[in-house]
Amino acid sequence: ETSAKVIDGKAVAKQIKDEIAGEIVRMKDGIGIVPGLAVILVGSRKDSQTYVRNKKKACEAVGIKSYEANLPEDSTEEEVLKHIACFNDDPSVHGILVQLPLPRHMNEEKILNAIGLEKDVDGFHPLNIGRLSMQGRDPLFVPCTPKGCMELLHRYGVEIKGKRAVVIGRSNIVGMPAALLLQKANATISMVHSYTKNPVEITRQADIIISAAGVANLVRGSWIKPGAVVIDVGINPVDDAQSPRGYRLVGDVCYEEACKVASAITPVPGGVGPMTIAMLLSNTLSSAKRIHDFKVHVHSFS
Amino acid sequence: ETSAKVIDGKAVAKQIKDEIAGEIVRMKDGIGIVPGLAVILVGSRKDSQTYVRNKKKACEAVGIKSYEANLPEDSTEEEVLKHIACFNDDPSVHGILVQLPLPRHMNEEKILNAIGLEKDVDGFHPLNIGRLSMQGRDPLFVPCTPKGCMELLHRYGVEIKGKRAVVIGRSNIVGMPAALLLQKANATISMVHSYTKNPVEITRQADIIISAAGVANLVRGSWIKPGAVVIDVGINPVDDAQSPRGYRLVGDVCYEEACKVASAITPVPGGVGPMTIAMLLSNTLSSAKRIHDFKVHVHSFS
Ligand SMILES: NC(=O)C1=CN([C@@H]2O[C@H](COP(=O)(O)OP(=O)(O)OC[C@H]3O[C@@H](n4cnc5c(N)ncnc54)[C@H](OP(=O)(O)O)[C@@H]3O)[C@@H](O)[C@H]2O)C=CC1
Ligand SMILES: NC(=O)C1=CN([C@@H]2O[C@H](COP(=O)(O)OP(=O)(O)OC[C@H]3O[C@@H](n4cnc5c(N)ncnc54)[C@H](OP(=O)(O)O)[C@@H]3O)[C@@H](O)[C@H]2O)C=CC1
Repeated sequence: ETSAKVIDGKAVAKQIKDEIAGEIVRMKDGIGIVPGLAVILVGSRKDSQTYVRNKKKACEAVGIKSYEANLPEDSTEEEVLKHIACFNDDPSVHGILVQLPLPRHMNEEKILNAIGLEKDVDGFHPLNIGRLSMQGRDPLFVPCTPKGCMELLHRYGVEIKGKRAVVIGRSNIVGMPAALLLQKANATISMVHSYTKNPVEITRQADIIISAAGVANLVRGSWIKPGAVVIDVGINPVDDAQSPRGYRLVGDVCYEEACKVASAITPVPGGVGPMTIAMLLSNTLSSAKRIHDFKVHVHSFS
Repeated sequence: ETSAKVIDGKAVAKQIKDEIAGEIVRMKDGIGIVPGLAVILVGSRKDSQTYVRNKKKACEAVGIKSYEANLPEDSTEEEVLKHIACFNDDPSVHGILVQLPLPRHMNEEKILNAIGLEKDVDGFHPLNIGRLSMQGRDPLFVPCTPKGCMELLHRYGVEIKGKRAVVIGRSNIVGMPAALLLQKANATISMVHSYTKNPVEITRQADIIISAAGVANLVRGSWIKPGAVVIDVGINPVDDAQSPRGYRLVGDVCYEEACKVASAITPVPGGVGPMTIAMLLSNTLSSAKRIHDFKVHVHSFS
């Protein structure tokens, strides 16, 4: 019985963070600039607080200065926009991100559009997504999670050009940009979503599968062509009496089945998750370099 | 032997143009405004001149005022930008389009980006394409040719939701936005391009095929699932000694073979071509309505 190679996102992310830390030292020594990332959190969702805390810790670990604005759940849109405007004008801030989801009473589109394009390290601005969609145009920033998926494929030497790629899920932040990136790399893409009638049949044709549906155990062994590469973006809680918290986190892919069919697969946790944060740091560093026209070292992951 | 229903783009386009002409009369009577379209042509390519002339004629036929700027091949980018700026500021102009391709020495991206978003009736601005890509966002204008394809599917009652759709070609102006529109309508899309290794196998799975590769007779009968709907965007010259010009225009699809397999198909000419111009007029009218906040009549094709 074969067993898939494990794509170790945690190890790759560590390597990338080490590279970033080195570049930040060189940047500070060279031009006295330290990259800065501002995170805006509205409300007090536990999961969002955890994400923000992790981003902050990751920044500190590589030498990025982090700025935080914590606003109460019942803030007005204007208050959020005021904070964004401040960070847009602040020359020590090179990246701004608004932790999603926002409270229901806020217009996400309006708020995200207020982030200055050159500081939009999440890459969610429609102008940025447009450039990502278009041939011959390049986005200023590639959204972090899909960028992390591509980086894993690159670092594990997975050929993309001419391959069939299936992306499960089409959200603005993961599935859709992941498909656009695979297409830019000349894969032949198909997109599976909740209206897809025959997801198994389509997914089984793929040489590369990226799953970002948010459904535990959606992708069974039977969905996977023998030898395919599987990138599992999903992070889904499932009941687990053994765990002190009463649940544990799993991906979209039924790992035990998949690792017998796939040639390579990302685990959950330890796959795409750590890469997302590493790419956020990478985007923040790139932004600081671009703003200060710092070119000492050609950054290898774009 | 079965024979596909012919999707008569010429007839549908005529019907749409009649509807547009009616609305323009109402608009003029109601608020004294006549929609205006400005076309910028650089150089003297015969095909481009023909396209521009046809657009102008179509405008006149429905009551849209057309403005033209013809610049010599060796104009500078600045001259083109100056004309765009003028039209951007001109309140009698509601749509601006730059006939492509531009001369080689010009930066297409820079020039297209100069068109005011609210007058970008071609819908090629990256911000517009970004909105087209994103769930929950809507573009100001949908690019004319893909919009025409969708309109044909709608008017012929072709169900899109949950269907497999294959788009052949991924250009910024046809293939890519066509795929995005099908996806917005909840089809399961695959995109075939020049790196695709097994185009026949993939295309044969489609319930809906849109071909925009620019290759005569690319799509043979064997590429088509029995009963599929085929939209042929291609306009390709092939040698024809019988024709006075020495050539005739054909689509990407081998029509004689396809019409025996498909359930419905667009002819070339007389299919998508006339729809493209009708959609340009529709976009221009929508723009004038939006700018002047004119809402007398809900426009049925969006
Ligand atoms: N590793 C990381 O760093 C990150 C992980 N995630 C995780 O990735 C997953 C996806 O996140 P996100 O994109 O934000 O989620 P969304 O809920 O925004 O999108 C889910 C997408 O999956 C599709 N989908 C849902 N159910 C099915 C199904 N049964 N079959 C096929 N398609 C389906 C939906 O289709 P439709 O559009 O038709 O509704 C939708 O497009 C989540 O588990 C999330 O926690 C997210 C971000 C970062
Ligand atoms: N009816 C109308 O109103 C209009 C008609 N057209 C016609 O539509 C056609 C396409 O136009 P346009 O999009 O501008 O063309 P482009 O040349 O810009 O794009 C062609 C696309 O087709 C792909 N392609 C080329 N050859 C093959 C092949 N053998 N197999 C699979 N894919 C292939 C290319 O792939 P890759 O990206 O890998 O190079 C590319 O994405 C042309 O015939 C054009 O005249 C265009 C506009 C309007």
